[in-house]
Amino acid sequence: MTSILELDTPAVLIDIDRVEANLRRAQDYADSHGLKLRPHIKTHKLPRFAKRAMELGAVGITVQKLGEAEVFADAGIREIFLPYNIIGAAKLARLRALHDRIHITVTADSPETVEGLSRTFAGSPTPLTVLVECDTGMGRCGVQTPAAALALAEKITNSPGLAFGGLMTYPAAGQVEANSAWLAAAKIALSAGGMPPVIISNGGTPDLWRAHEVTAATEHRPGTYIYMDRFQVAKGVGTFEDCALTVLATVVSRPTEDRAIIDAGSKALTSDTLGMTGFGLIEAYPEAVIVGLSEEHGTIDLTHCANKPRIGDKLRIIPNHACVVSNLFDRVTLISKNAVVETVKVDARGRVD
Amino acid sequence: MTSILELDTPAVLIDIDRVEANLRRAQDYADSHGLKLRPHIKTHKLPRFAKRAMELGAVGITVQKLGEAEVFADAGIREIFLPYNIIGAAKLARLRALHDRIHITVTADSPETVEGLSRTFAGSPTPLTVLVECDTGMGRCGVQTPAAALALAEKITNSPGLAFGGLMTYPAAGQVEANSAWLAAAKIALSAGGMPPVIISNGGTPDLWRAHEVTAATEHRPGTYIYMDRFQVAKGVGTFEDCALTVLATVVSRPTEDRAIIDAGSKALTSDTLGMTGFGLIEAYPEAVIVGLSEEHGTIDLTHCANKPRIGDKLRIIPNHACVVSNLFDRVTLISKNAVVETVKVDARGRVD
Repeated sequence: MTSILELDTPAVLIDIDRVEANLRRAQDYADSHGLKLRPHIKTHKLPRFAKRAMELGAVGITVQKLGEAEVFADAGIREIFLPYNIIGAAKLARLRALHDRIHITVTADSPETVEGLSRTFAGSPTPLTVLVECDTGMGRCGVQTPAAALALAEKITNSPGLAFGGLMTYPAAGQVEANSAWLAAAKIALSAGGMPPVIISNGGTPDLWRAHEVTAATEHRPGTYIYMDRFQVAKGVGTFEDCALTVLATVVSRPTEDRAIIDAGSKALTSDTLGMTGFGLIEAYPEAVIVGLSEEHGTIDLTHCANKPRIGDKLRIIPNHACVVSNLFDRVTLISKNAVVETVKVDARGRVD
Repeated sequence: MTSILELDTPAVLIDIDRVEANLRRAQDYADSHGLKLRPHIKTHKLPRFAKRAMELGAVGITVQKLGEAEVFADAGIREIFLPYNIIGAAKLARLRALHDRIHITVTADSPETVEGLSRTFAGSPTPLTVLVECDTGMGRCGVQTPAAALALAEKITNSPGLAFGGLMTYPAAGQVEANSAWLAAAKIALSAGGMPPVIISNGGTPDLWRAHEVTAATEHRPGTYIYMDRFQVAKGVGTFEDCALTVLATVVSRPTEDRAIIDAGSKALTSDTLGMTGFGLIEAYPEAVIVGLSEEHGTIDLTHCANKPRIGDKLRIIPNHACVVSNLFDRVTLISKNAVVETVKVDARGRVD
């Protein structure tokens, strides 16, 4: 049995017992509220975890890129939701090829996107299902009003090769009531217009445990919940004991009494602060602050630490944002009770398009 | 001839004419001041550009990871400087293997690092050259005083298998005088101690054109200079016309009059702000501000734009920090005068250890 302390650093450790518990907790929650779960794979990018989520009851997976859909389709996943405006000939051709072999659904928030999809799927034996993306408060993509959702749904319905599937949002964290009200109003508008939405897809981990309060939603798409991270703990969604992804780093320098340098910088932890102080939590030294990152160095302020790490010590760090860490490493090491289980390739890492 | 506008997005474009001009400008500058150039490959991670820099006169290359050294050694580079504390049995064995086939030099800033190196190289037919890393103001790794540099140089000299090679610093940007004074004092202390440093290695692009003011330095290690980026332009080191790396992105949504969403988020541009507002400069819309990034979406504020991009338009973006972008893409596309020359693998991308 190999201990994690024998691993070279920096390394990404995934605690598979915590993964299993996180997957089960969310599925149990969704089941108890009659919500479907369609987890987002962006956090882990590993088909094995997508398959496990579906074994536990998830109705399919969510991806953000065609390249991710291709990797997961190759791995045998047949039900994929890609909530993105697919634009341009190259991507439309790839989408058509995916549609020919799995059940893939997309979103649109503009006539331009719908027209490109319709040109591509007009001759398809089965239509492509398209959901209308709604901006319920996030300020990213999405139609701006329920009336605009209705208008775009009508355009989809009238477009050759396409079928209107419902509504999708990625909501602003913490704005559960506003999100719920928006979707409820859109559901009424669409039903009155003769196009009741079959799917109303809500998303996000920050408000996962309040997903049932969005009463119009038929399903939820959490992503980070599988690993959790420092940001989600700050939001109260989980505890540090739920965090399944840690970065293992080595102390390579102790230049002063109060400073340690580790071999994990922005290429391991990323610069994401998500509004927090510091670039991660060091499990064994919670009073330490990771005050700065360059690409290959992390600078730690030990001022408030009673005990201080020594050169050569290995530290486990809960990153601010787990998803972006997964995208930096070609391989991650699955662990159980601090023992190495297996090192695996992150199949969908770096699928940029 | 393929136009860059035919490329799928997001894509990283490298203007090879600008690369050549940037390499030549720095080499000419170094030559004119009798400084050696030992460029850092972290920015591009491509052996072809390292070889070109050496053809133009660079004395070798600098890398930050053993994995990078291995890739560049495999590509035929024989002179590599790895300014890092190499710690732990696995890494020390890899360093020994590299030393057996190329000329590799490292740094140390502590007795612990020196002792590990000496244990590994004690039986080596040729000693490993070790430079003392000095903290001349950056507040990262490095001994804190010239007297400490002398003490560590003595330890290296007295350690079996090792040879003392000189001093190295990665200085704080803008603190040229303090950096110069520190190194000059250390040179005097070491010379007085009977160990005059053969190499005094200074680094960084922000103060590249002032490198000759650091009079004790024998060489300089710039990295970002090959591509430049928005941060270096802000520092006055180059102009936007010198920037060789751009990210090509597509407008996928125009949800409101003043908002555009592109298919480049933090997985393409990274969250690095380096203290600036916005996440990059859009060449054709300099008044636009990239106000937010999620992993696969960039949110652009068009309030101050007279003309506004449309859905499907492709935009070229100069990122805040070029080096971290190179680490996110498996492949980059070399271009010349807006025509595609070749798409190449980023050989040393993701070499995390």
